Amino acid sequence: MSLVNHGAFLVSEELTEKSNLALLDCTLREGSYAVDFQFDEGFVTRLLARLNETPMPMVEIGHGIGLEAERAGIKAGNIDHFRWCELANETLTKKPWGMFAQPEFTRLSTIAEMTARGMSFVRVGMEPDRVQANLDYLRRAIETCPAVYLNLMKSSATPIEDFRTMLEGVPEGIAGVYVVDSYGAMLPADVRRYVTAVSQMFPTVGFHGHDNLGLATVNSVCAWQSGAAIVDGTLDGIGRGSGNAPVESLAGIVNLIDDDVFDYREMAKLAQFTRSSLELVVDNRMMQVLGGVIGIHSGYFPLVEQLAERCGTEPAHLMATAVRLAEQSARPADIQAAAEQIAADLQRLPHQKDTLRLDQPQTPVDPDDVVTADAITLAKIAA
Amino acid sequence: MSLVNHGAFLVSEELTEKSNLALLDCTLREGSYAVDFQFDEGFVTRLLARLNETPMPMVEIGHGIGLEAERAGIKAGNIDHFRWCELANETLTKKPWGMFAQPEFTRLSTIAEMTARGMSFVRVGMEPDRVQANLDYLRRAIETCPAVYLNLMKSSATPIEDFRTMLEGVPEGIAGVYVVDSYGAMLPADVRRYVTAVSQMFPTVGFHGHDNLGLATVNSVCAWQSGAAIVDGTLDGIGRGSGNAPVESLAGIVNLIDDDVFDYREMAKLAQFTRSSLELVVDNRMMQVLGGVIGIHSGYFPLVEQLAERCGTEPAHLMATAVRLAEQSARPADIQAAAEQIAADLQRLPHQKDTLRLDQPQTPVDPDDVVTADAITLAKIAA
Repeated sequence: MSLVNHGAFLVSEELTEKSNLALLDCTLREGSYAVDFQFDEGFVTRLLARLNETPMPMVEIGHGIGLEAERAGIKAGNIDHFRWCELANETLTKKPWGMFAQPEFTRLSTIAEMTARGMSFVRVGMEPDRVQANLDYLRRAIETCPAVYLNLMKSSATPIEDFRTMLEGVPEGIAGVYVVDSYGAMLPADVRRYVTAVSQMFPTVGFHGHDNLGLATVNSVCAWQSGAAIVDGTLDGIGRGSGNAPVESLAGIVNLIDDDVFDYREMAKLAQFTRSSLELVVDNRMMQVLGGVIGIHSGYFPLVEQLAERCGTEPAHLMATAVRLAEQSARPADIQAAAEQIAADLQRLPHQKDTLRLDQPQTPVDPDDVVTADAITLAKIAA
Repeated sequence: MSLVNHGAFLVSEELTEKSNLALLDCTLREGSYAVDFQFDEGFVTRLLARLNETPMPMVEIGHGIGLEAERAGIKAGNIDHFRWCELANETLTKKPWGMFAQPEFTRLSTIAEMTARGMSFVRVGMEPDRVQANLDYLRRAIETCPAVYLNLMKSSATPIEDFRTMLEGVPEGIAGVYVVDSYGAMLPADVRRYVTAVSQMFPTVGFHGHDNLGLATVNSVCAWQSGAAIVDGTLDGIGRGSGNAPVESLAGIVNLIDDDVFDYREMAKLAQFTRSSLELVVDNRMMQVLGGVIGIHSGYFPLVEQLAERCGTEPAHLMATAVRLAEQSARPADIQAAAEQIAADLQRLPHQKDTLRLDQPQTPVDPDDVVTADAITLAKIAA
């Protein structure tokens, strides 16, 4: 296999600029996916109290998909957002703490209410092509909360060249803009390209990675070395799908490269505390790898599996077809259209269809009833 | 935090040389650590039969620590090496398959016997400073087996400058020399330095990584881009301690960078098959991070925990002291010496000692009985 001109990874030891790194621990927000949004309150209290004593600069808590996700039909957390505020106020006396929001279901009044109860930052998630429609939401959030970050979900599905237009008019008051590798699909060179480009538009850039292909940690370090100021991590890497960059690894690497800025030994203890305290949802490794390579959000995996089975094809084929059809990131409508196209192709290939039928009974796809309303609703708002 | 001149990670897109990559799947050798050396035979047969149909170039099987590890007091596998040969011959009709060996306990006659039964390569593991003492073993192994690889365990504990002297006289017939990141402690820039240096001494270089700090995958890709011909991976990353580079991730990344050389979709299926079939030993995340950052082999963790508790100190402090005392890699004698030194220091600091005593009853360290014979034996031969 020739690799000439494909050196997306080769390391360099040159760094021409000074760089600073802040870590954001989002174990108790992102990690909630891994416990089906049910965190034991005793664990939460003990963990927050110990995080309060670490040098971790920022802590995020709350529902993984965002404040008031239950308004969109998502399973509610056992700890509601009012209770999260109480827990944080009791324990995080020395740390700024924040929550996640999505304009689809998080009311601005709720952001205001959380802020009044001590929340000092909010991260508002949306895909890059949705930013223009949400400029007013961002403006009003900024009037309400001391620090509002814009998290560009599924960043890699949008060509970086389109970012400038899509991000036009984002209020100057924004605290920072995040590149988000929702698919766990980015290579270090992609991270550098995206972070560098966003750095040219906004003074503070963040990075949030996923570990589908085992690159969340190096991507986080690369983001930081490309000028990102804030990088996210979770204890023991717990999070949606394949999880995230383990914050204790990032702390350890910082110690190896530079100095023990984040007390990696305490973070390692907290990672073990997390591992020994929680029972995690087990994800499907095949789907996570396919999602990473092809670029499909893990929130859509149930829909993909359902439709792939219904039209007698492999999930990988359905995913790749959906990505080809999609104008931006592949969304439920694209996955549905892909399933219809595959079903139609199979109709035109009677021999192949018969072969498939031998292996698996094939139900023709009905375009009007291709997925249950629930699957679509859930898929649409998957963070 | 300043990062000037610490750019161990920054990615580059330049590659000046053509490179070729072979993957070695060692799920059924390295992964045996993760199941306490007990693999269900039905799983093994099904997995090997499916690996036989993939483009995976090489497959390693057998006891994780090496052929005849039980001769050194290590727990035996439920499948002995004769049975492994039978299983491989029944299933791996299209693949070269091999096993792991260590001169301390693997007899040359056993390598000969396995070769007669179809084994086409053996990987002989030892630390770099043990190579000179084992040149004859290597020579005789090469006379016996078609392909003998030299795996330099704990490579990073030896300064790369010392490799040339230590590797002098390695027979030209060696099939390849492996850089092994046993601690999961290497940064991509370290991997490049070690792989490049070994490439200047031997035509074929391999890399075997561990994932303590989340860098096994990127390190493997960096090894390959630095001239390594063979890179190891395991399905779902199963292996000793924090595990290894997931071979399905490496296959997926190769597809993203270049082409689908290794059928990443089938490898992803096999990873899920592995995940859903096995119940894994759960490691201690804190110890894995400490081992990665400080540089202590996970095989010594039980010894570290035992001695740290006995002299009333933190495992991290004991590990760091042992590494400081060690001439090469930290070995059981160094950990023991470190414990003695810490105990003596505590004797000289009565106030601190009293404080410690309040928290934890402290037993004075007896240099003659500092660890059980079992712990030392096991630790000495940990691969």
